[in-house]
Amino acid sequence: MTFHDLHHADRPLLLPNAWDFASAAALHAAGFAAIGTTSLGVAAAAGLPDGEGATRDETVALARRIVGLPVPVTVDIESGFGADVGELAAELAALGVAGVNIEDGRPGGVLADPVEQARLVRAVKDGGPGLFVNARVDTYWLGTARESTVDRSRRYLDAGADGAFVPGLALEREIAAVVEAVDAPLNVLHVPALGLERLGALGVRRVSTGSLLFRAALHAAVTTAGQVRDGLPVADGIPSYADAQGLVAGAPWSARDR
Amino acid sequence: MTFHDLHHADRPLLLPNAWDFASAAALHAAGFAAIGTTSLGVAAAAGLPDGEGATRDETVALARRIVGLPVPVTVDIESGFGADVGELAAELAALGVAGVNIEDGRPGGVLADPVEQARLVRAVKDGGPGLFVNARVDTYWLGTARESTVDRSRRYLDAGADGAFVPGLALEREIAAVVEAVDAPLNVLHVPALGLERLGALGVRRVSTGSLLFRAALHAAVTTAGQVRDGLPVADGIPSYADAQGLVAGAPWSARDR
Repeated sequence: MTFHDLHHADRPLLLPNAWDFASAAALHAAGFAAIGTTSLGVAAAAGLPDGEGATRDETVALARRIVGLPVPVTVDIESGFGADVGELAAELAALGVAGVNIEDGRPGGVLADPVEQARLVRAVKDGGPGLFVNARVDTYWLGTARESTVDRSRRYLDAGADGAFVPGLALEREIAAVVEAVDAPLNVLHVPALGLERLGALGVRRVSTGSLLFRAALHAAVTTAGQVRDGLPVADGIPSYADAQGLVAGAPWSARDR
Repeated sequence: MTFHDLHHADRPLLLPNAWDFASAAALHAAGFAAIGTTSLGVAAAAGLPDGEGATRDETVALARRIVGLPVPVTVDIESGFGADVGELAAELAALGVAGVNIEDGRPGGVLADPVEQARLVRAVKDGGPGLFVNARVDTYWLGTARESTVDRSRRYLDAGADGAFVPGLALEREIAAVVEAVDAPLNVLHVPALGLERLGALGVRRVSTGSLLFRAALHAAVTTAGQVRDGLPVADGIPSYADAQGLVAGAPWSARDR
C-alpha cells in the first residue's frame, strides 16, 4: 500500500514521529506502517530551537538515514527552512521520502499570510510532485483566527497539498466541521479523549503523535537515571544492548517481537 | 568541583550517559553533576553499528553540542576510531571535554593486545593531558581472560590513564579485589543488586548507566506509540512541548523542577 493509500484505508493512519534512526527503526520494528518525524525532536536532539528554520541540515540528514527502512517516511520541514523549499522537496523526494509536512506557523507564534503560504505549498509540490504534501494549519495552536482553518486548508489544497493537518483540533463538532468542509484527508494530533476509532468515525484519516514520543523518551531517560540514583527498580521490559544494536541491522526491536 | 575531583568525593560519581543534546541537557537539568555519552546511543541514533569505529564524526559532533552545558562532559570514543587517537583527544580537549573513555574491546568481540592498548591510552593522554582518561577493560564483557583485568588496568594506568572501567564487574568480592589491586578510581556499570551506596562502600568511585538510559528512552517511545494505537493512557508526567523546547535555552527540564 502506498503512503497516499494509507490515507484512505479503513482506519486512520496512525503516524508515530521519530527523531533519529533508532527511534524510527524501533517504531518500524514495532509494526507501524509509516514513520513521520518530529521537528521538535530533531531540533532538540541537535541543541537547536524548533520552528525557527534552524534544522534544514539535520532534517535532510535524518531523512537520508531513515529512508532505507521498508516503510514510507514523511518528513516535517517546519515552514520550509527558507527560500529554496522547492529544492528541498526535490532533494527529499530523490532520497525516497514519501511525504512532507509544511506549516504556516512562523517564529514568534504568528501565522503566515495564507497567500504566501500557498505559494510555498505549490513550490513543494512542484519540487516533489510525488510527495504527499501535508499542509499544517496552525490556527488552533497559535490561538488566533480559528475561523480561518477551513479557508487556509482549502487554499493550501488548491495549491497542491494532498492533505491538511490541524494540530490542536480536538473537539468532536469542530473535527466533524473541518472534515465536512475540506475535501482531503484530515490529519489531527492524537486526542486521548477520543482515540483512533472515534477519530476515524469522525472522518479523520491520519493521526500523528507529534512530539509526544520524543518527550516520553526523554522523560524515561531522566526517570531511569533517577531510579538508578535512588536505588529503585527501573521499568520492566527495557530491551537489551543486542536488541538496540540489532536495530541498525534491521532486526526486531526486542526479543518479545520475535 | 572538577571532573577529576568528582572521582574522589564521599559518594561514587553517578554518571548518566546521553546520546544527543536533548538527553544531555535533560540529565543536566535533573541535577546530575556530570554527563557521559553512550556509544551505542550515538551509533544507533545515526543508524550505525556500535563498537566498530564508525562514529568518529558523530561523536565529535555530539561533544561539540554538549560541552556548553555547565557540567563536565566525558565522551566515549570506543577504541579510538583509528590511528589518530591523539589528535582526537586533542580535538575533544580543545572543545572543552573533561574526559574520555577508551576501550580495549575490538570489533568481533576480541580483546586488544594490552601493549597495543596501552599505547593508545598513552596517545590519548599525550593528546589531551587535562582529560580524565578512563580506560575500559572489556575482560568481563567479552567473557575471556578475566584473570587479566588487574594486569590490563595497571598497564593502562601506567600508560597515563586516570581511572579504570570494568563493565560487567558485578560481584562484591570481585569488585573489592579489583579496588584493592588497582590504585585508581574504579568505574563499574550500575549493579541493581548492589546500588550506589554499597558500590561506594566497596570502593567504587564512579558508576555509569552505559546504554541503559538510551534503551529506556527507545522503549518508552515504542511503548507510548503502542498506547496511543491501543487507546491506553500514556505515562504520567511527560513534560510539555515548552519544557522540551526550553532545554535548548537552558531551562529546567520540567515544570516540576522549577
